[in-house]
Amino acid sequence: MSEWVTVCEVGPRDGLQIAHGIMPTAAKTRWIAAMAAAGLREIEVGSFVPPKLIPQMADTAQVVQAARTIPGLLVAALAPNLKGAQNAYAAGAARVTVPVSVSEGHSRSNTNRAPMEQVAEVGRIAAWLAEQPRRVILEAGCATSFGCSIDGEVPTAAVAKVAEGLARAGVDTIALADTVGWGNPAMVHERVRAVRAAVGDKLQKLHLHDTLGLGLANALAGLEEGIRAFDSALAGLGGCPFAPGAAGNIVTEDLVFLLESMGLATGVSLPELLATRELLAAGLPGEPLRGALGRAGLPKTFHPAR
Amino acid sequence: MSEWVTVCEVGPRDGLQIAHGIMPTAAKTRWIAAMAAAGLREIEVGSFVPPKLIPQMADTAQVVQAARTIPGLLVAALAPNLKGAQNAYAAGAARVTVPVSVSEGHSRSNTNRAPMEQVAEVGRIAAWLAEQPRRVILEAGCATSFGCSIDGEVPTAAVAKVAEGLARAGVDTIALADTVGWGNPAMVHERVRAVRAAVGDKLQKLHLHDTLGLGLANALAGLEEGIRAFDSALAGLGGCPFAPGAAGNIVTEDLVFLLESMGLATGVSLPELLATRELLAAGLPGEPLRGALGRAGLPKTFHPAR
Repeated sequence: MSEWVTVCEVGPRDGLQIAHGIMPTAAKTRWIAAMAAAGLREIEVGSFVPPKLIPQMADTAQVVQAARTIPGLLVAALAPNLKGAQNAYAAGAARVTVPVSVSEGHSRSNTNRAPMEQVAEVGRIAAWLAEQPRRVILEAGCATSFGCSIDGEVPTAAVAKVAEGLARAGVDTIALADTVGWGNPAMVHERVRAVRAAVGDKLQKLHLHDTLGLGLANALAGLEEGIRAFDSALAGLGGCPFAPGAAGNIVTEDLVFLLESMGLATGVSLPELLATRELLAAGLPGEPLRGALGRAGLPKTFHPAR
Repeated sequence: MSEWVTVCEVGPRDGLQIAHGIMPTAAKTRWIAAMAAAGLREIEVGSFVPPKLIPQMADTAQVVQAARTIPGLLVAALAPNLKGAQNAYAAGAARVTVPVSVSEGHSRSNTNRAPMEQVAEVGRIAAWLAEQPRRVILEAGCATSFGCSIDGEVPTAAVAKVAEGLARAGVDTIALADTVGWGNPAMVHERVRAVRAAVGDKLQKLHLHDTLGLGLANALAGLEEGIRAFDSALAGLGGCPFAPGAAGNIVTEDLVFLLESMGLATGVSLPELLATRELLAAGLPGEPLRGALGRAGLPKTFHPAR
């Protein structure tokens, strides 16, 4: 049996939040169902944020409700604060991801709080969730862990400090996010080690953007450090409305190809996943779709991992 | 002092050979001079092939003659056979690269010879070069070392066997080429080790294409194996007229960014290198230019290696 790597699709959240158009709710749920049918086991389907700020996410409660009827799918949603987490819980999300920026500038731009204030908010979310009858996984995403287009360089020690605060605040898992895509493999090695020294196995995932073309090389560095979970977006959608210059997420289908071709199992059928690009294109006409596999197709020598 | 990595620009050869238009000789030499001024120390400026087959390369002798007047630049040229190597020598190339396909199908399509027949031709080239008064470096590029769009999978043992033959034939250095871009990091680790076991330090370089988006991840795997030289093409030009489905080379500016941001020195000034994209665009109107750095620009936190 091959080793398993979890690929969490974040296109319906990170991708659609910055798209030029608004994908209709029915198109979102069709697309999500098709990606789940292609084998993706975790999908971040939206975010519970004020519709005035991000109108593309106004229907997230409906999308969560529809997605949780899909057998075997872990339905994740983003929430920037307690109210959002409560809404995610009410809608039936299985995991709530709370963004916590390491850099002051992005933190204030994204959540209107200083980093350690947002860590405290995560503590309130953890406490509230612990009192609810249904168990929901609480994930924190350490945004700008590899640099910030507002503040510039972000020290490794600052990332470890925020992660340590999050572990103490009671999160279940931590992801390091390269929000603006300025990371490189040497940084991935260094920061994964530093954060693991601070919080151990609570560090589970990398969330990478491909602004400078290093996304998959950074994922490889993460794999070498033992990371076995990644966020990515079909067709490389994505960006951050509050991080100037950020480009799309690493491309899910290219990431799955990297993993499977190296003998790491993802459970994803690449032909079926590639076919879902058409649903995305139909639901969001005019949005540019990226990705090498989408352009070149699967090579005839490809065998999925077993 | 940082460790050094050699980046050999192959756009004027691998890129222009498959371009839709023909870049005028004066535009080629201007572009090459600008890339050398940006710090590239090795440029493969053309190939000595019949102009009927590849008309874009008809002026290679002139381009070599112009390029060898640039101080400090190693002028390389490709030659598929003895006659081409003699022409490269006569024009004044400092290095001749001879392609030797590991797969039978690509070998016959590219050079009209079986792999071991082409190895024998390399032996004739080595013998002829050894008799000349001027020393010229003989490099062999093992094409289709990671798969072939005609023959499919290419066994590691076949790559090692061809490399061993080339070492015996008297080449100075060997490059492994992922001609169709089907390699992955696990294959890079495996094949670099196998070929090094066969030929030792004669294996010096990887020539990677980015068909499936894994190009820079593959370069990272090569770095981890101790490879310190790479071919690449500005703006990701490139492909092979005799390898259906092959996409462009890894992008020089993105590769340099990967290396420099990891503290590996290349001697290249990225702002100056990025500026040469305009000369390329002017000399080859309508040709699509790829590359993350060209799109996103240098992040403000970037510092070159020292």
